[in-house]
Amino acid sequence: MTDLLLSNVHLATMDNGYGLLHDAALAIKDGRIAWIGARHDAPPAAHEHDCGGAWLTPGLIDCHTHIVHGGNRSDEWEARLNGATYEDIARQGGGIMATVRATRALDIDALVAASLPRVKALLAEGVTTLEIKSGYGLALDAEERMLRAARRIGELLPVRVVTTFLGAHALPPEFAGRPDDYITDVCDVMLPALAAQGLVDAVDAFCERIGFTNAQTARVFDKAGVLGLPVKLHAEQLSDQGGAALVARHGGLSADHLEHLSEEGIAAMARAGTVAVLLPGAYYYLRETVMPPIAALRAAGVPMAVATDCNPGTSPLTSLLLALNMACTLWRLTPQEALLGVTAHAARALGLQDEIGTLTVGKRADLALWNIARPADLAYAMGFNPCQAVIHGGVLRTID
Amino acid sequence: MTDLLLSNVHLATMDNGYGLLHDAALAIKDGRIAWIGARHDAPPAAHEHDCGGAWLTPGLIDCHTHIVHGGNRSDEWEARLNGATYEDIARQGGGIMATVRATRALDIDALVAASLPRVKALLAEGVTTLEIKSGYGLALDAEERMLRAARRIGELLPVRVVTTFLGAHALPPEFAGRPDDYITDVCDVMLPALAAQGLVDAVDAFCERIGFTNAQTARVFDKAGVLGLPVKLHAEQLSDQGGAALVARHGGLSADHLEHLSEEGIAAMARAGTVAVLLPGAYYYLRETVMPPIAALRAAGVPMAVATDCNPGTSPLTSLLLALNMACTLWRLTPQEALLGVTAHAARALGLQDEIGTLTVGKRADLALWNIARPADLAYAMGFNPCQAVIHGGVLRTID
Ligand SMILES: [Zn+2]
Ligand SMILES: [Zn+2]
Repeated sequence: MTDLLLSNVHLATMDNGYGLLHDAALAIKDGRIAWIGARHDAPPAAHEHDCGGAWLTPGLIDCHTHIVHGGNRSDEWEARLNGATYEDIARQGGGIMATVRATRALDIDALVAASLPRVKALLAEGVTTLEIKSGYGLALDAEERMLRAARRIGELLPVRVVTTFLGAHALPPEFAGRPDDYITDVCDVMLPALAAQGLVDAVDAFCERIGFTNAQTARVFDKAGVLGLPVKLHAEQLSDQGGAALVARHGGLSADHLEHLSEEGIAAMARAGTVAVLLPGAYYYLRETVMPPIAALRAAGVPMAVATDCNPGTSPLTSLLLALNMACTLWRLTPQEALLGVTAHAARALGLQDEIGTLTVGKRADLALWNIARPADLAYAMGFNPCQAVIHGGVLRTID
Repeated sequence: MTDLLLSNVHLATMDNGYGLLHDAALAIKDGRIAWIGARHDAPPAAHEHDCGGAWLTPGLIDCHTHIVHGGNRSDEWEARLNGATYEDIARQGGGIMATVRATRALDIDALVAASLPRVKALLAEGVTTLEIKSGYGLALDAEERMLRAARRIGELLPVRVVTTFLGAHALPPEFAGRPDDYITDVCDVMLPALAAQGLVDAVDAFCERIGFTNAQTARVFDKAGVLGLPVKLHAEQLSDQGGAALVARHGGLSADHLEHLSEEGIAAMARAGTVAVLLPGAYYYLRETVMPPIAALRAAGVPMAVATDCNPGTSPLTSLLLALNMACTLWRLTPQEALLGVTAHAARALGLQDEIGTLTVGKRADLALWNIARPADLAYAMGFNPCQAVIHGGVLRTID
């Protein structure tokens, strides 16, 4: 006897493409998918939920966010639109350091309170797994508070939170002019201490002319390797720094952004099985014009994920469905590729492909139920939420 | 004694810019704004609502939508992304005629049912006035059903619906090759019959190489003039047809789209007081690259409104806040201009500037209450709804 049967439903299993199964049913037992098949073959269940012909997909996965932070940056955004230059903004203490100051000022409770509305917006659209990065603390205590706030969110809301330590996000003022010393602090103090507390599921860095060098990034990755932690990288967003090849060389889970990714980077990612995490929100918000090499990634068989990059400076985006639309509209991903990008491929970007990301017997029953005519509707509409219900760990809750 | 006092609130009255009033209060009597002032001066009221330091703005106005329609077009959108050409789509009966067929197939109840979820998405974001066009019926009976569905929506939900007859939207198959005969039908049969039933608040047309000519549009406008109905126009979206000058010559409320608007068109609009309704959703969705002449409109003092253009083919957008973000991000409107575009200027685009659009004593108490730090937040975030409550005709309802 299964616990819950979702009947009268169409499935997009996202196993090998859409993986369509019409007029189907799905049974859940002990929080896992226990059975999938034709509606009329469904096994007995303690409870049955008639889905009324809705569509069931894997719960969505947002695999790249900076959603825990203090403050926002609408003030400097407005100043820019009113004619202020980047120099004006910097002189007034704007940019990422404004977020660092606002984040450092908050304790864990306040960080959680500031972030919960954003997380709830994602969850209302069917997100069941959420990656959250640190990186606005840039000091041991503040980075720890960010990561603890991320863990707390996973306890308060029906979502699996995966944490990423991004100490190498920017150079804090305390280390001005001494980036190598800061990286030493990241590697020798912050990362080991935070990992020892079980706060770090993966390690990330910002490898860019305005971030850290290839060599500095490699030091962080080497330390992660020693600690047995997987790595990922903000790579080739503004210029080609060879970051994708670097993270691939370290067997990285993903290289993220990739607007300026080279052929060599693509080949290295393909060999290593590193996922390309595409972040159209930042591309849109920054009015970038160089697109990631979608066709070449496709040709090389590199799995593409799509995420919000939710952050206050370059992508204040709390709708994963809107990220799907942007990926299709701006970069011509197909709706199927976009949906794979927030299910099967996003799971892989988090190293969780055996647990979530497809409707497969044995995987966790993290599911989303949609009032749509076809899966493409999830990417087609803008600002519309057709989510009818979310199932997290087998527990169903309706969305109003 | 007033009916309701909204206290402990910051106001953006949108009267002459943001019209900021901090630590204020607003009193409502008989569904109208009865008093505005400093918090500590507030008059007695039967009920008091402590807004907890939230922000109050005029209820938002979406002044250009095609939100009543049958079906969607995600199937052809997906086919295009999978490589189908426009010719392939047309051969399979796609494009606007697919929506005409789907809309003609529905009775009023079914049209309302199909449209309500979209309208509810807008209303949850603080929209209190909504323009709805016909134009997918293209025959008397089907146009009437669309307009009746629009009126019904205004009865079912707390929103003021303003209807627009857009019979001259496209040439129906019954009149293939005979556009002048169709315009005769629009002018001599459809418009008088629908106006006589009180279903038409304004008259619109699609003046474009792929739509109707300047001369055909003028015939529709002349007839509207005879019937005493205001006019507006889909103008210069894909090319400069002199439509803005035409609608201005007829004292039109608005010219809409305007990507290819000329200096002459701007001058004519400025002289006539015709509002420029900007529709960034369609620009984004169609990946257009020619922007409306924002700086020239600004310099000429033409009021700019912003709307969703919600429609299944070129702007499946049901978030007016996202339209604000697009207007600022893609076209560099300031957040203040964008917010004026969905309040004071949108009211003017509907001829309702004496009734709604600003927080002014005597105007209708159509208001929105926001959990934001500053008004720019409404345009800054993407996919986030900070609406805490909506007041429609003086009646407050909270948004969950
Ligand atoms: Zn990022
Ligand atoms: Zn339109």
